[in-house]
Amino acid sequence: MSAYPGQSDKLMSESELEAALRQIGAERYHNLHPFHKLLHGGKLERGQVQAWALNRYYYQASIPRKDCAIMSNMTDRALRLEWRQRYFDHDGIGEDEGGIERWLRLTDALGLERAYVASTEGILPATRHACDAYVHFVRDKPLLEAIASSLTELFAPTIHSERIAGMLEHYDFIDETMMTYFRRRLSQAPRDVNFALKYVKAEAKTQPQQQAVLRALLFKTNVLWAQLDALHHAYVEPRNIPPGAFDPSAVGG
Amino acid sequence: MSAYPGQSDKLMSESELEAALRQIGAERYHNLHPFHKLLHGGKLERGQVQAWALNRYYYQASIPRKDCAIMSNMTDRALRLEWRQRYFDHDGIGEDEGGIERWLRLTDALGLERAYVASTEGILPATRHACDAYVHFVRDKPLLEAIASSLTELFAPTIHSERIAGMLEHYDFIDETMMTYFRRRLSQAPRDVNFALKYVKAEAKTQPQQQAVLRALLFKTNVLWAQLDALHHAYVEPRNIPPGAFDPSAVGG
Repeated sequence: MSAYPGQSDKLMSESELEAALRQIGAERYHNLHPFHKLLHGGKLERGQVQAWALNRYYYQASIPRKDCAIMSNMTDRALRLEWRQRYFDHDGIGEDEGGIERWLRLTDALGLERAYVASTEGILPATRHACDAYVHFVRDKPLLEAIASSLTELFAPTIHSERIAGMLEHYDFIDETMMTYFRRRLSQAPRDVNFALKYVKAEAKTQPQQQAVLRALLFKTNVLWAQLDALHHAYVEPRNIPPGAFDPSAVGG
Repeated sequence: MSAYPGQSDKLMSESELEAALRQIGAERYHNLHPFHKLLHGGKLERGQVQAWALNRYYYQASIPRKDCAIMSNMTDRALRLEWRQRYFDHDGIGEDEGGIERWLRLTDALGLERAYVASTEGILPATRHACDAYVHFVRDKPLLEAIASSLTELFAPTIHSERIAGMLEHYDFIDETMMTYFRRRLSQAPRDVNFALKYVKAEAKTQPQQQAVLRALLFKTNVLWAQLDALHHAYVEPRNIPPGAFDPSAVGG
């Protein structure tokens, strides 16, 4: 039994590599996490949704830093010009306010104070560790692995569609304007991932590179999964909120 | 006697700090290097000017990576939005082709093959070490020191003015179109440095921070100086060209 899809001591074809990457998503992407099933199925209280949005803000705020770190390792200007669209998607450019601002409109609408959200003081330690680990991974690993770690975007449109539909249907404190971030990602993520997938398939020419690419995507699915584990532990079961972390009951959430 | 301007075990006022930073430029900026005096005074052969432009390309190509590394360490989106103009200056944005392209037009006009320049295969090892050291410095040091290391821009307009006038006057193989990069920097650098100087003066609140800021600028002046030392050694005196490095005599320069 393989430890992960595509684990092999043989060189794969490009299509076998792509199939293995997609299989990792099918088995490991965080749409499978119990917390997301609760979130999308309308099973959470408002305070738990606040905790999710508050913690996820740190992930959002880390993404442009992650993309700048990747660009800092790109010696090819053409690659930087391609990649920087991801950076713009989050920090904004021209008329586009960017994903971080859109996320803050969600936390605003959920009744969280913007200064508190932006301070990241109330996030779970595991959220910080996971997001920082992602930034450090792309900074320190070969560019091929850094780019491969972005491939969770392959699986994002499905979760965003489920999320928009599920949250609008199930929560009376969620409306369409709060879903702007996810609607936008529905068009952004496929555009981005086409480039990354093509790059990874073309550049992973050896068996060790292919395995490194698969492990990079596993790393990233773990970054996402660990954040939900921590949310579930703190806010669902057994509801052990770490010292200093956001407490919905203390703020009337 | 102080090892460097502003060396002190006391906290300085903001204006004392600025004066010490400017004094570092007055004593250590690479406009003082013998190689630049030769370059601007018309004392170099075309092959030596080629060697300078070829090596300096690697510095130009490293600058956007340096700025992305700084941005990857900025947790404040507003700071990233301020800083990214520097990144745009070099990689280009919209109608602006950017500084790297402008530099390549200089190396084109000097008769260097673009593919050879972009490959960076012919640069001096010390050029690579110096530029890589700069990227690593800003990636690994506190943001305050990373920003302080950019303050050589305080001194850049003078050297660019000298360079444009000197090179146009003295070399028949240099014309106005080849000076586009430097003309552009005359307006870019002062805009950038105003922000950085203000930031550094406001944020260096303690004596250790102030000394770290001064040392960061010293580090950067050394990055620039070391590149000219290597050029001078390889191409002026004693003309010991390292193995693999550009050899003007071999290409008919």
